[in-house]
Amino acid sequence: MRVAALAGGIGAGKFLRGLARAVPPHDVTVIVNTGDDVVMHGLRVCPDVDSVTYWLGDAFDRERGWGRRGDTFRANEELARFDAELAWFNLGDLDLATHLFRTDLLASGATLSEVTQRVTSRFGIDMRLLPMSDDPVTTRVSVVAEGEEVDLHFQEYWVRRRAQDEVKSVRYQGAASARPAPGVLVALREADLIVLCPSNPVASVAPILAVPGIREELEWRRDVVAGVSPIVGGRPLAGMADRLLPVAGVEVTAAGAAEFYSGLLGAWVIDDVDRGIAGRIERTGVRVAATDTVMTDDSKAETVARMALALVT
Amino acid sequence: MRVAALAGGIGAGKFLRGLARAVPPHDVTVIVNTGDDVVMHGLRVCPDVDSVTYWLGDAFDRERGWGRRGDTFRANEELARFDAELAWFNLGDLDLATHLFRTDLLASGATLSEVTQRVTSRFGIDMRLLPMSDDPVTTRVSVVAEGEEVDLHFQEYWVRRRAQDEVKSVRYQGAASARPAPGVLVALREADLIVLCPSNPVASVAPILAVPGIREELEWRRDVVAGVSPIVGGRPLAGMADRLLPVAGVEVTAAGAAEFYSGLLGAWVIDDVDRGIAGRIERTGVRVAATDTVMTDDSKAETVARMALALVT
Repeated sequence: MRVAALAGGIGAGKFLRGLARAVPPHDVTVIVNTGDDVVMHGLRVCPDVDSVTYWLGDAFDRERGWGRRGDTFRANEELARFDAELAWFNLGDLDLATHLFRTDLLASGATLSEVTQRVTSRFGIDMRLLPMSDDPVTTRVSVVAEGEEVDLHFQEYWVRRRAQDEVKSVRYQGAASARPAPGVLVALREADLIVLCPSNPVASVAPILAVPGIREELEWRRDVVAGVSPIVGGRPLAGMADRLLPVAGVEVTAAGAAEFYSGLLGAWVIDDVDRGIAGRIERTGVRVAATDTVMTDDSKAETVARMALALVT
Repeated sequence: MRVAALAGGIGAGKFLRGLARAVPPHDVTVIVNTGDDVVMHGLRVCPDVDSVTYWLGDAFDRERGWGRRGDTFRANEELARFDAELAWFNLGDLDLATHLFRTDLLASGATLSEVTQRVTSRFGIDMRLLPMSDDPVTTRVSVVAEGEEVDLHFQEYWVRRRAQDEVKSVRYQGAASARPAPGVLVALREADLIVLCPSNPVASVAPILAVPGIREELEWRRDVVAGVSPIVGGRPLAGMADRLLPVAGVEVTAAGAAEFYSGLLGAWVIDDVDRGIAGRIERTGVRVAATDTVMTDDSKAETVARMALALVT
């Protein structure tokens, strides 16, 4: 039973912990978004890769909702004393080590895939994590700020400005010429289940689909593609997906998120509260199942994962 | 009473704290070695600039002998868990903030002089600190390691390998085409006293002298140049100057260090224990005074500074 998962950050991390209880982790390849990677004070930060790593490596902070458990913020607090404007991206001291390690290895010629392999092995992770690409792809958001259209790095929009601006458009700079990382296309081709994790469709999954070859592979294998809705009862499970789905022209519902993946989905797992719109989704040719998708612990996540499996096998 | 000081790291920091008690700090320009700057895990680290900054900014750790007081090493300890080989340069968490700040500003187009001005103002320093140059100069050491000659960055030789290799030669890569930082030559030209801090002559002061124009300015103004010997009783005051003076062809004594500065020195402050060789130095045309130069506190450092002042004014 081979599984390939397309993943963003925290929602994906929670879900994948459940998946690790449902199938042998060694059989899972996780293809992670790198569109929101950012060079911060000279360091290469990969927020989604690191979120998934910390969740799967049992190093996540479930209470805070992001970052490493037991982390401190001495360097970043001190940086704020130099210039508060610079310190908006809250880097933890332990988290910094990941970025120092990655930046060092990349500078010495390693690919992001190679670095990711070393980081995940340090955290004892059995699943195989791959960045979607070793080439740079940057999610950029065009927003209206004080009456003017401004082009921002996704993190500036998302973290620094707390997603408060009106968004005109989102683009994935560099995606058209990026190549899938080694192993990505094979993993998709050979998977018995391809799962779209409950991540932000526009910010986390779309950048992966924008890398040439990946969307085509999912269209081709649509029958084994199952997604988990990141929208529950018309609101995001976590994060701020509601800010971006309308820009993509779909409504902020489990049906709207499914529509975003139109042409790629064989099956769609929705929350119990959304049973009422299951029929609407099914009429688009997508198999639907409902369960409690609010993954407050690993056993709940396992139930969600088993439901996705059941829908395609 | 305008003073210009040529400075390395810790020895200079101690001395300059004394100088700040002897003359108005606003009248002092400190020209700091940047030859041992290093890009560490993507971050621009300026060990000597930072040492002087932490000492003058009252943020130094006198007990540990380097770095910031009250610092922790969480990021670096965690980095060692990724790869112990990478973590040889011990970056403190608070210290990291300086490097993050500097790297960020340099990437946004600021010069090292501008960054240094902002760092020193954050630490409330009244003296003006200037890097010797805004252009890259790198001290490289050719050593014999396991029978082979290897070319190392100064920090690799000094910190990583603890200065244990036999040194064949030292060079200051990039110095020939480097320009003195804005303000350096004017400060030297207008100074009533030019002081060579008790820093490592080969590792700390020679790189400054290697920047075109600086040595010439000192030769020209030799009468007002006073140095403080970094060698006391045939051993370095601090650090490992004894490893490098022989490479420069001089003996490891207060007289040898003075000889290293041959042609530049008007006066030389030595330790009481070296009174016996004062005559030898005086015969080279250098005025000599002796005092207790082991600066265990600021008032002792003040005495040393006043002695240097007395020798040229």
